[in-house]
Amino acid sequence: MPVLLAPDQAIPLDRLLAEANVFGVDCKPVPGAGNPLIRGLGSLSSACAEQISFLSNPKLQDQLFDCRAAAVIVTPAVWETQLKGRELSFVPVLCSEPYLMYALLAQWFDRHRIAKLPKGIHPTAVIADSAQIDDGVSIGPHCVIEDGVRIGRGSRLGPGCIVGANSVIGRDCLLHARVTLYHGVTVGDRAILHSGCVLGADGFGFAPDPRGQGGWAKIAQLGGVVIGDDVEIGANTTIDRGALENTVIGNGVKLDNQIMIGHNCQVGDHTAMAACVGVAGSTIIGKRCTLAGAAMTAGHLTLGDDVHISGATAVTSSILKPGRYTGVFPFSGHSDWQRNAAVLPQLSALRRRLRALERQQASDATEPGQTSSQ
Amino acid sequence: MPVLLAPDQAIPLDRLLAEANVFGVDCKPVPGAGNPLIRGLGSLSSACAEQISFLSNPKLQDQLFDCRAAAVIVTPAVWETQLKGRELSFVPVLCSEPYLMYALLAQWFDRHRIAKLPKGIHPTAVIADSAQIDDGVSIGPHCVIEDGVRIGRGSRLGPGCIVGANSVIGRDCLLHARVTLYHGVTVGDRAILHSGCVLGADGFGFAPDPRGQGGWAKIAQLGGVVIGDDVEIGANTTIDRGALENTVIGNGVKLDNQIMIGHNCQVGDHTAMAACVGVAGSTIIGKRCTLAGAAMTAGHLTLGDDVHISGATAVTSSILKPGRYTGVFPFSGHSDWQRNAAVLPQLSALRRRLRALERQQASDATEPGQTSSQ
Amino acid sequence: MPVLLAPDQAIPLDRLLAEANVFGVDCKPVPGAGNPLIRGLGSLSSACAEQISFLSNPKLQDQLFDCRAAAVIVTPAVWETQLKGRELSFVPVLCSEPYLMYALLAQWFDRHRIAKLPKGIHPTAVIADSAQIDDGVSIGPHCVIEDGVRIGRGSRLGPGCIVGANSVIGRDCLLHARVTLYHGVTVGDRAILHSGCVLGADGFGFAPDPRGQGGWAKIAQLGGVVIGDDVEIGANTTIDRGALENTVIGNGVKLDNQIMIGHNCQVGDHTAMAACVGVAGSTIIGKRCTLAGAAMTAGHLTLGDDVHISGATAVTSSILKPGRYTGVFPFSGHSDWQRNAAVLPQLSALRRRLRALERQQASDATEPGQTSSQ
Repeated sequence: MPVLLAPDQAIPLDRLLAEANVFGVDCKPVPGAGNPLIRGLGSLSSACAEQISFLSNPKLQDQLFDCRAAAVIVTPAVWETQLKGRELSFVPVLCSEPYLMYALLAQWFDRHRIAKLPKGIHPTAVIADSAQIDDGVSIGPHCVIEDGVRIGRGSRLGPGCIVGANSVIGRDCLLHARVTLYHGVTVGDRAILHSGCVLGADGFGFAPDPRGQGGWAKIAQLGGVVIGDDVEIGANTTIDRGALENTVIGNGVKLDNQIMIGHNCQVGDHTAMAACVGVAGSTIIGKRCTLAGAAMTAGHLTLGDDVHISGATAVTSSILKPGRYTGVFPFSGHSDWQRNAAVLPQLSALRRRLRALERQQASDATEPGQTSSQ
Repeated sequence: MPVLLAPDQAIPLDRLLAEANVFGVDCKPVPGAGNPLIRGLGSLSSACAEQISFLSNPKLQDQLFDCRAAAVIVTPAVWETQLKGRELSFVPVLCSEPYLMYALLAQWFDRHRIAKLPKGIHPTAVIADSAQIDDGVSIGPHCVIEDGVRIGRGSRLGPGCIVGANSVIGRDCLLHARVTLYHGVTVGDRAILHSGCVLGADGFGFAPDPRGQGGWAKIAQLGGVVIGDDVEIGANTTIDRGALENTVIGNGVKLDNQIMIGHNCQVGDHTAMAACVGVAGSTIIGKRCTLAGAAMTAGHLTLGDDVHISGATAVTSSILKPGRYTGVFPFSGHSDWQRNAAVLPQLSALRRRLRALERQQASDATEPGQTSSQ
Repeated sequence: MPVLLAPDQAIPLDRLLAEANVFGVDCKPVPGAGNPLIRGLGSLSSACAEQISFLSNPKLQDQLFDCRAAAVIVTPAVWETQLKGRELSFVPVLCSEPYLMYALLAQWFDRHRIAKLPKGIHPTAVIADSAQIDDGVSIGPHCVIEDGVRIGRGSRLGPGCIVGANSVIGRDCLLHARVTLYHGVTVGDRAILHSGCVLGADGFGFAPDPRGQGGWAKIAQLGGVVIGDDVEIGANTTIDRGALENTVIGNGVKLDNQIMIGHNCQVGDHTAMAACVGVAGSTIIGKRCTLAGAAMTAGHLTLGDDVHISGATAVTSSILKPGRYTGVFPFSGHSDWQRNAAVLPQLSALRRRLRALERQQASDATEPGQTSSQ
């Protein structure tokens, strides 16, 4: 539904596709179908005139014929079987990967928005003399950049970001408003960091205080955090600094909101975690893993590559074999749950009773006549 | 126990009740019992002189007779059966809804506190020329108000709030310190937004990058967030912007702290969620629902009106029928848990073994003599 | 691996041990083994020259012989049985409590870092005239200190902290960047508060609005938050203010990141909670308890002293007896989970069927001949 460009900024379809298609996806309008001006991007059901839409989910195919978009991206197969020869109100764009092309178009529109944001360094930002800020860096109002920080070319910090001493931010990063980096945190190129995320807070480490009363002696956390390239970190997510070594987030890792990554963890390249996931300290997660929402892992575990954890699952031991793993108590109506959950504390006893019956039966079967004769 | 008014600001009971009772609840002191000066509001056990208290939980009835408050709100039934004719140290206030009247009194005292806070626009706030700030708006130190923002009459922004470009805040809203709105977020009238909440961060959307290595292409999130009237949003809660459409929060919705609402979600009017709830993307929740603490829902679900989810329950499929739903593993002593949880991976096998026994028994019963004769 | 001191700041081993050992732990280098200059602290496997390391986990004992550290802390027993008489590349330091000594050394290095941070009150901080700031307090850029606040000697506030009206911060506290205290919050001495934590937001309290439509009347939260001495609170953790009384956190309590403590809760001295824990309102937790990651408790419960809750466990009733308690659905491969979880809604029925079989068997056994004769 968003109309994203003002009328005088509308862009011809062919130019939009060329500019957006940074991956070189196979994507072109049906020849001769026209070259409408495009101002936005919408779903099949909500896109209106001067917008482009896409069909990636076959279930939505019927929406094609009511779609009011100026252009619609479809696969060649859909074009051949559904659209060719029909009178269409939109320009069909044939593309091998409509969903990916949608992603690239959305990126194009967002880049267009970002390009118009204020540039330069706001006078209310407080920047240490020793900080090295590359050309073309934008720093918003009320940011604080401490001693020894380096920020790479083309990066943009929204209002109220705080970058602790000696931290490093790579090139072309986008820090939304109010991102906090403690000291000694390194972020690679093209990171997207969302508001409220905190990188480099102290890991949770204490030694029992032997002087009694159950007190704790803080283990000051001397390691850092190292974030690879092309990482996105969601709003209010926290990644703690290591105790002695670094906490390490690999390239291309995508973390949603409200995630907690404990100290000394390592997260492999391209692993993605949905919101509310917690990874306890010193756990190592492989490449291309996914952790669905609210999944939790204990500490000091190893998850191998290509491990997929279902939502709300608590991982309490290492997983070395690729695959999908789940552990969720199925919900039900409350009284059904009460009735069935009440049996759980008896499960072990039930198994014992079942075994006893089986033994009895086996004994009955192998000793014919015994049951009735004794 | 809070004493909230200075001695010279004490208010006569009758005036306090009249000013606080904005709902017109049936509520009046017993005639002739006096009109003490009130400076605060406390529980039965802790209220002291010059304070008003209330009895809403019948279990606390015995505390009435030790209560040191100057006035106590009770139901007419309690008055008739427990208090009438006795010598009382407090003025009884008869009210059909003591708990609601307590809420209204607490609101009165809080309004009194807020009315004394600094007003106006602090000189350190950074406000875009194109922002439209209505009369009577207060904006605290170090706030940032970006281009095209509109803020309605009587709204108050605490220190360090950031309102992104083209966002809209209605009338009489209260943003506590350090609330973050991204661009294109709309908040209705009388909202209360708590510190650290983030409205409008990017939803978590990626298309697989077909160029290999398991990478992800970001789906830039072009929708917004629309929040209705009379909504409260807790500290460090996050509500993501929609992918193409808006994420929508209905009127009167109450969200506690540390909640995550994914992109494209819709939450119906008057639904309330306790802390640590997570709602994954594109899920639609009806009106008057409640989700207790740490409940989680998967994405793309529908919860109908009047659905109530117990705490720590993972909702993995749609729920259309009103009622209470639960799915929690009952806790127990650790070794009991170990013993019983160890049976869970065998449940399906146990059921099979039970069936086998039943079949055997049935066969024994229907074929008399077979067991012992074979 | 961190090298923390510049070469010209290297400190002799004996002086480092003396300065770090604030607990008076039994700890001294083997006589005559030398007094190397130390610049950092590392693990056995990563410490390099000019660093000190330690052996606390017996499993890592083999790493001693490849260790490149200048000095290693070991127990007298390890010295006697493993090291004495061998040629060693490091100075052995004999200590009754190597892990605690590691904690104290890490604290020393961190104090050294903190001591070099900018001091004083940054000119961009906004400080109310009525605030009482003791000598030796440091307040970072863009902080906001409201009316009536008191901050004790030696406390340090990082950039962007906000301290609400009439809040109190004790001596020698360390508030990292962007900590938020609402009004009326009291923090004891030597607190460490991490970025994004929010103390004193409104508890989640509403009375049903009897005027219909399922609406809610806010119960304004008039209590405060009181935090004891030596408390650490993690990044993005939230502790709500009480409704009428205070929410109370005892001395020496350690809270990790992303924890939620509801209104009116009381947490006993030295209790520790790992990340993502949620404690619902009015729950009282004893002394020396531990709640592992993502544990949740319902509201209005009591947990006695020395209660230990396993990770991801939902506590739904009070626990008065010390011990460890668990309630986690064991995870497994997804299809195994599906197969076994499908039996859960039948558990009660299975138990009934098992009983029926047992009764039948008992009846068979007590009435000999019946089975085969009927």
